[in-house]
Amino acid sequence: MIAVLAGGVGAARFLRGLVRSTQASEITAIVNTADDTVLHGLNISPDIDTVTYTLANAIDPVRGWGLENETWTAMEALGRYVAVRPPLSGAAPNWFNLGDKDLATHFYRTARLGEGATLDQVTSEIASAWNIGVRLVPMTNDRVRTIVTLAQDCSAGPAGTEISFQEYFVQYRHAVSISKVRFEGAESARPLGLEILRDADAIIIAPSNPLVSIAPLRAMAGVDEALIKRRNSVVAISPIVAGAALKGPADRLMTELGHDASVVGVARLYSPICSTLIIDAADEHLASAVEAEGMRCVVTNTIMSTPEISEQLAKTALECAS
Amino acid sequence: MIAVLAGGVGAARFLRGLVRSTQASEITAIVNTADDTVLHGLNISPDIDTVTYTLANAIDPVRGWGLENETWTAMEALGRYVAVRPPLSGAAPNWFNLGDKDLATHFYRTARLGEGATLDQVTSEIASAWNIGVRLVPMTNDRVRTIVTLAQDCSAGPAGTEISFQEYFVQYRHAVSISKVRFEGAESARPLGLEILRDADAIIIAPSNPLVSIAPLRAMAGVDEALIKRRNSVVAISPIVAGAALKGPADRLMTELGHDASVVGVARLYSPICSTLIIDAADEHLASAVEAEGMRCVVTNTIMSTPEISEQLAKTALECAS
Repeated sequence: MIAVLAGGVGAARFLRGLVRSTQASEITAIVNTADDTVLHGLNISPDIDTVTYTLANAIDPVRGWGLENETWTAMEALGRYVAVRPPLSGAAPNWFNLGDKDLATHFYRTARLGEGATLDQVTSEIASAWNIGVRLVPMTNDRVRTIVTLAQDCSAGPAGTEISFQEYFVQYRHAVSISKVRFEGAESARPLGLEILRDADAIIIAPSNPLVSIAPLRAMAGVDEALIKRRNSVVAISPIVAGAALKGPADRLMTELGHDASVVGVARLYSPICSTLIIDAADEHLASAVEAEGMRCVVTNTIMSTPEISEQLAKTALECAS
Repeated sequence: MIAVLAGGVGAARFLRGLVRSTQASEITAIVNTADDTVLHGLNISPDIDTVTYTLANAIDPVRGWGLENETWTAMEALGRYVAVRPPLSGAAPNWFNLGDKDLATHFYRTARLGEGATLDQVTSEIASAWNIGVRLVPMTNDRVRTIVTLAQDCSAGPAGTEISFQEYFVQYRHAVSISKVRFEGAESARPLGLEILRDADAIIIAPSNPLVSIAPLRAMAGVDEALIKRRNSVVAISPIVAGAALKGPADRLMTELGHDASVVGVARLYSPICSTLIIDAADEHLASAVEAEGMRCVVTNTIMSTPEISEQLAKTALECAS
C-alpha cells in the first residue's frame, strides 16, 4: 500500500500519474483540510475536491480547479445581493467562485455533515460517486484552519492582521506579504491515517506547498513521529523548481517565512521526516546541497505537463521508496 | 398604512394587484415563515421569496414559484450524489428544486443569518436588492415549523408519522392524507408586526391557505388578540372558490382537518378575527351562509388570472376595510 500526503493541484496531478503506474486500490491519499472553509453555510473542502475531480478526469484543465464545462449562474446572481450588503458585512462573498455543478458537491457534503456523518465518510461517498479508485482520507475529521498574519499594511488590512487562508489565497490572490502561518485547532485535532503511515509500503509527500499544504498535517500530534519512524520509506517531491513554485505562492511563502525558496530550503523542512528528495533536472546543480541536508537526492523531470511525465515521476518516487 | 397577512403564491398575486391600486410604500406584508426549511445548510424561506420575486416581476409565470429563465445545473449535478447516499440518509434531497439563480438568494440569507443578522433585516435587504417598494416582514425572527401528521399508511410512512411541511408539500406533492397540523415553536415565538396590526388603517388576509399559511401567524401569542381588536378593519379573501383551492391543497386540508371545504368553512375560521369575507361570484349562492357565520360577505371576481383582476380585487378589499 502506498500513502501520499497531499495538498491540492500538484498532489492531484501526481496522483493521476500514480494511478497510471500502480493499482488505484493500492493508493491512499491523506489530504490537507486546513484550507477548508464555510461559505454561505456550505462546507467547502478545496483540496479534497481538486484531488477528486482530477482523478475523475473532470477537473477544468485550464484553471486546474473546479469542474470542466462549468457554469457560474449562481455566483453571477449573487452580485445583486453583494451590492446591497450592509457596510460591515462580509456575507455572501462573490470572490470565491463556486460553479453551478461544483455546488452539488458542497450541498452533499454539507447535508451529510449536518446529519452527523464524519468528513472521511462523506469524502469516501463523494469519491465513490465519481468512481475514484484511490482511497481519499481527510487529514482529520476535526476543524483545523490555516490563518496567516499580514506582514505589512495592505489592501487586506494593517500589518499584524490575521486573515483566513482563503482570504489570503483567493480574495487577495496571495499577492500580500505574510509574516506568519498558524494552524488553528491542529494541536487538539485527531489525525486520521496514522495507521496508514505505519503500515504503508511507501510514503510519498506530493509536490504540494510545504508550508501551507503539508505543514498542517505535520502540525497534528503524532504525524511527524509516525513519519520519522518510517523515514527510510518516505520520499518527497520538491514543489519548488528553479527557485519558483509551479503554481501558487510556495516560493514567496518560503522567502517570507524565512526559508530558502529552493530545493535546499525544501530539503531542510523535510529532512527530519523524509529520506529522499526528488528534484527537477533544472536544480541538478543543487543536488549535493540537498544531500548536505542529510537526504538522498534524485534528479528527474518533475514538471507534470503531461500525464506521461506524471506517470514517470510517480514511478521514480515508487522506486525511491522501496 | 395597509397590512397584509400573506402566505405564498395567492398572497403574492394579491399584493401585485395591491401595488397597482395604492402606493407600495403604504403596504406592509407580514409573511408566513412556518414553511421555511434548511436544505444543504441553506436557509430557505419559500413564501418570502415567492412574494419578493412576484413583486419584482421576476417570478416564473408558469410555475408560480422561483425565478423566470431559471437553470437547474446544480440540482441536476446533485443526482450523482443522491445515487450514492447511504440507505438511512436523507441528505441532499433533490426533490426540492433550487434554481441556479435562486440559489444566490439562499446563499445571501444564510450568510447574513450566520453573521447574526435577523430574518427581518435580511428580508429587507433582499427586498431592497429587488427594488420592492412593499415592506416585507417575516411573521417572526424565531423558528416556527409546520409539522403534519399522516392520516393513513402511505408512501411517506405509517399512519401517525409526523413529517415536515416541505416533505408533505413538495416531496409527496400534498397527495397524502393528513390528520393534524401543528406549528412547532409557535407558542414561544415572538411575533413581528403586532404594532403594524395595531396601527394599520386596513388589515387584509390574503387568499392564502387558512390552515397552513395564515394559521401559523395566528398560532403565535397576541396575533389573534390584535386582530380581534381591529376586527372591523380586517378583511379576508377566500382562497376557496367553488369548493376548490385555486392552487395547493387548501380544499383537501379543510376536509381532512374537519372543516367545510367552502367559503362557509373559511368564514367559520375567520369570523372571530375578521368582519368581512370576500368570495368569488361562483360562490354567490353561499353569501347568506357566510353572513350567518357573523361576517359581512362581499361577492366579486377573486380569480387573479390577470394583473387587472388582481388590482380590482385589491380595490374591493381596500374599500371593504375602510
